[in-house]
Amino acid sequence: MAPRTTQILEAAARLIARRGVRGLRVEELAAEAGVSTGLIYYHFKDRTGILRQTLEFINDRAERYTAGQVAEGAEPLAPRAELEETLLLELQDTPVIRENSTAWGELRASAVFDEALRDDLARATLVWVQEVAALLGQVQPTAPPPALAAAAERLTAQLEGLSMRWLSGGLRIDHARDLMRGAVDAELAALRGK
Amino acid sequence: MAPRTTQILEAAARLIARRGVRGLRVEELAAEAGVSTGLIYYHFKDRTGILRQTLEFINDRAERYTAGQVAEGAEPLAPRAELEETLLLELQDTPVIRENSTAWGELRASAVFDEALRDDLARATLVWVQEVAALLGQVQPTAPPPALAAAAERLTAQLEGLSMRWLSGGLRIDHARDLMRGAVDAELAALRGK
Repeated sequence: MAPRTTQILEAAARLIARRGVRGLRVEELAAEAGVSTGLIYYHFKDRTGILRQTLEFINDRAERYTAGQVAEGAEPLAPRAELEETLLLELQDTPVIRENSTAWGELRASAVFDEALRDDLARATLVWVQEVAALLGQVQPTAPPPALAAAAERLTAQLEGLSMRWLSGGLRIDHARDLMRGAVDAELAALRGK
Repeated sequence: MAPRTTQILEAAARLIARRGVRGLRVEELAAEAGVSTGLIYYHFKDRTGILRQTLEFINDRAERYTAGQVAEGAEPLAPRAELEETLLLELQDTPVIRENSTAWGELRASAVFDEALRDDLARATLVWVQEVAALLGQVQPTAPPPALAAAAERLTAQLEGLSMRWLSGGLRIDHARDLMRGAVDAELAALRGK
């Protein structure tokens, strides 16, 4: 991606995480990114184009920090540890993860009122669910695929629910992480019984 | 509660569910409720007062439709059935439940950016978690209280996560209900092992 485009999307993610998606104005985004509004319209066509590309951008960024955890040359994680790591990485109180999670939750919440992002959100969620289902399958290879898919849908929705409580100040991050670990335990125990 | 106040809060819940909390203007609320802005300021002081009272109003309404399910004189539900019913009632595609869930999710989402509602949300969530923990304890009386509380926190956050996906068009309601039943199964199985 061209550096200018990345610069605009980074600014959009920052603004959405700071004030929400519904207050996002192209003029303000231009000021935050240090570019002209014309350049933004040239690259993204309209406001919906900006939001769709920002959703993709924060998704890619989440994948990068998820995949980047295992240092080069280190032993690969055991399947169970990799599953937990993948889910727990989103529950960390660092500026970039807080920003990413806030922007994701806000784009999800805005889709309740605005249909423009719904297809992109559904696609991104499906990819995420399939990734978690594959990790669950590595831990419980004999579990039937529909049971793995259902467990993955629940674990990802659980993560979104806990993340929202954390970001809205109702849940400490360490407690959110404990609850998420407990959810993984419960789902894996249920899959062993299938 | 005075009928006029109820009328204003009903209008506020409707407007928040229709367009979100962040676009809510007192003038618009007055028009929707058919009252003067002066009356709204008299009863609720300011915008934060309106939002806090609306949160309480939609919570009370959720309790009413939850409690109202068992017809007068009918056999009381077995503890397991009561637990499932309580959680599944929030996942129903009826106008009032959709409106209530949309308004709740929107107030939660707005609290990420605005601290004014955080304490009220935390208190309402705690009451809800304690209610679900008590129902879990009736099903699994030998489970230790901290395990019941953690399972209740997860099940309520799970419900919020699934509800958000349903309301943002990414999950069919019947599938959301199946996933919620599966979560109850998994948590109860894990509690039996404690």
